Amino acid sequence: MTTLRTPKGTIDYGPKESKIYEQMISTVTKIFKKHGACSIETPTFELKQILTNKYGDDSKLIFDLKDQGGDICALRYDLTVPFARYMAQNNIQKIKRYQIGKVFRRDQPAITKGRFREFIQCDFDIAGKYLPMTTDAECLKIAYECLSSFEFGMFTIKINNRKILGAILTLSGLNKELHNTVCSTIDKLDKLSIEEIRKELVSKGCDNKGIEIIEKYVKYKGGVKMLEELKNDPIYEIEEGKTGIDELLQLNDYLQIFKINNISYELNLARGTDYYTGIIFEAVFKDYSVGAVLGGGRYDNLVNDFIIENGGKGIEVPCIGFSVGVARIYAILSEKMKEIKESEVMVFVGASGGSFLEERMYILNELWNANISAETLYIGNMNFRKQATFCSKNKIPFFLIIGEEEIKNNYVQLCDENNERVSISRDEMIEVITKKIQNLVK
Amino acid sequence: MTTLRTPKGTIDYGPKESKIYEQMISTVTKIFKKHGACSIETPTFELKQILTNKYGDDSKLIFDLKDQGGDICALRYDLTVPFARYMAQNNIQKIKRYQIGKVFRRDQPAITKGRFREFIQCDFDIAGKYLPMTTDAECLKIAYECLSSFEFGMFTIKINNRKILGAILTLSGLNKELHNTVCSTIDKLDKLSIEEIRKELVSKGCDNKGIEIIEKYVKYKGGVKMLEELKNDPIYEIEEGKTGIDELLQLNDYLQIFKINNISYELNLARGTDYYTGIIFEAVFKDYSVGAVLGGGRYDNLVNDFIIENGGKGIEVPCIGFSVGVARIYAILSEKMKEIKESEVMVFVGASGGSFLEERMYILNELWNANISAETLYIGNMNFRKQATFCSKNKIPFFLIIGEEEIKNNYVQLCDENNERVSISRDEMIEVITKKIQNLVK
Repeated sequence: MTTLRTPKGTIDYGPKESKIYEQMISTVTKIFKKHGACSIETPTFELKQILTNKYGDDSKLIFDLKDQGGDICALRYDLTVPFARYMAQNNIQKIKRYQIGKVFRRDQPAITKGRFREFIQCDFDIAGKYLPMTTDAECLKIAYECLSSFEFGMFTIKINNRKILGAILTLSGLNKELHNTVCSTIDKLDKLSIEEIRKELVSKGCDNKGIEIIEKYVKYKGGVKMLEELKNDPIYEIEEGKTGIDELLQLNDYLQIFKINNISYELNLARGTDYYTGIIFEAVFKDYSVGAVLGGGRYDNLVNDFIIENGGKGIEVPCIGFSVGVARIYAILSEKMKEIKESEVMVFVGASGGSFLEERMYILNELWNANISAETLYIGNMNFRKQATFCSKNKIPFFLIIGEEEIKNNYVQLCDENNERVSISRDEMIEVITKKIQNLVK
Repeated sequence: MTTLRTPKGTIDYGPKESKIYEQMISTVTKIFKKHGACSIETPTFELKQILTNKYGDDSKLIFDLKDQGGDICALRYDLTVPFARYMAQNNIQKIKRYQIGKVFRRDQPAITKGRFREFIQCDFDIAGKYLPMTTDAECLKIAYECLSSFEFGMFTIKINNRKILGAILTLSGLNKELHNTVCSTIDKLDKLSIEEIRKELVSKGCDNKGIEIIEKYVKYKGGVKMLEELKNDPIYEIEEGKTGIDELLQLNDYLQIFKINNISYELNLARGTDYYTGIIFEAVFKDYSVGAVLGGGRYDNLVNDFIIENGGKGIEVPCIGFSVGVARIYAILSEKMKEIKESEVMVFVGASGGSFLEERMYILNELWNANISAETLYIGNMNFRKQATFCSKNKIPFFLIIGEEEIKNNYVQLCDENNERVSISRDEMIEVITKKIQNLVK
């Protein structure tokens, strides 16, 4: 017996869900294009070795394809690593691109929390060597525009710099090669208890004094004033810390130009993935507790690492970008958009007192050819209530009716949403309906 | 060493390719919506058992996921079987839907011929019990609109009925259970030599007399006249043949109403997949020898089979639909669209006689907030030639320039594609540029 279900952690998107996704993706795509982004599309699976050593502890969540002979492949885990592979492979050093597509993680799914094994990612990135913090600022501007476009009210963009975290970890006595794994522990600060965090830090090589230092700094959060004060802090004496703080101050100037005020510099922000090297950020909505709805950061070495692994001569291809958390935004939208028009049909072609199927088909053909969206029910028994129900269920604004009388005298009746009925001669049908639709859409 | 490439049979779509796909998909989506279709989205992979026994000989081409514990899954092979699974699972008996997504086949790739292991399918289907041949006619109308929309000149839609093929095979002495596999041999008529076809037919149980009968009928092609003549043919005496011919005649009446004339009834058309049960069709462009660019047909049992396999009580959910062969249409489009604008930026914000970075950022912010697509180069050395090259390479119509003089006197210079330069006061900048863009787009 076949069980009719989707695999664990995956779902079907029905008409309503698809419509919400379509609107959400159309909104952010317009913003990306406004900033000059092009789109690229990489395959759903990559050579397994491309994904190896990119995701730290999370590598175990990669979906592998079965070895059926030939290439050993795995489903993509995100869109960033394939993007870096694409650039390294094609020797591209400058690009502003977005990519929207599904990614796959063999995580323990929690569907109500919006955690799936297959989900859509919606990424925007800028690659290229430019003046410091300029593309970082534009990325944050684009993130700001995306977040505003959803009209979910207040939001905060939390910002940190991996370089500052690096300085804190140096200060706490940890070797450079441990920084990434400890960052991924810090990333769990809002998920685990302080005892669990301490235990994990100890297991990763932190001593008590180190933990104390980490715990002190991860409490720092604030605006530009806090950044200014950090100039008198021991971490400013560490080169990496000085660079990190100066970068944030420079970034802050540009964010003022772009009129982005709802930001908070928070030293506990770490981001999970290994490849970040500079500015990192995450956004949350004030009124919706779904967690981060957008996140990203700077990764200056990923493309270069691919080039070098491939035996090429190293070349700097600094990148910054972010993902829009569409699954979480979807969760909010679907709550708000209870009533949604799944289809876009404007005219239902009905009949009264008989079937008049062929006559309905002639009318449909005229409407379609005039680019008017229209439907009928291909049934013989054109019960009036059935037709009215179909119109109201599908929110079709115009109900066109023909019967013996109308056919004989070459006209149609058109009923609008307010139940107002007009007679229109067949010769003027297209013109009148086109105008009525234009007035409705206005 | 890592090899930087995509897996065998897959490719990256760069900015140009993505743009062509985007336009193509937007065109057909509009047509689908005009006919009242909604969209659904099923997962990229399905439980392996869902795909079993659906694709005949081609089942060996299914990509399996590795068994990493839990569900045994495989990448989807088409969008039709997941659609039928979705309907059976959710007890949906009527829907008009489209789905656009990637499907996967472990075929021998032939990239120049447009045969990939991962490719986009673009499907439209109507499910539900309606008057005979009505939804078939609407599907063909939609197919006709899609094919016309590409503006590739003349095309022919070849139509046949699996029921007529069934009658021919009955006449040739083959048992019912062999019909599907023999249909898949007939489907290869334009790929294999007549000797190879005969050999395959013999191996599948045809005797010489049977082969003679098949060879006679697959030569039949023509218009409604040929269909009328078939009424005097022995296959009309077989019940399945009579139904098949009467259906085509009824369909032909509706296609006349929809003004679809470029059709050809061809008894050699078979379609490969097992699940077809009635009308089948394929379209080819006259001037482009890329093979079929669209294909589909009626499959009345697929949903019901799922319901019964799942232990449910059988219920009729007749379906008809088609796939647009986007990879092949892409191949034609990319030849025709040599020059394509990858980004949609309207204004480049440049500088003369200095960098004026922050001033450029202020202007960019104003443009973006007014919903005007704009870019700059975040570099310090604003060499004029470099800026002009960037504009022409990216086909940006307006080049806005600021310098010391402009900043001091609060204006900007705007240069259009014809190199005509105007000075605009900063206060009127947005208004003037908005108008200029509107005029350009008109």
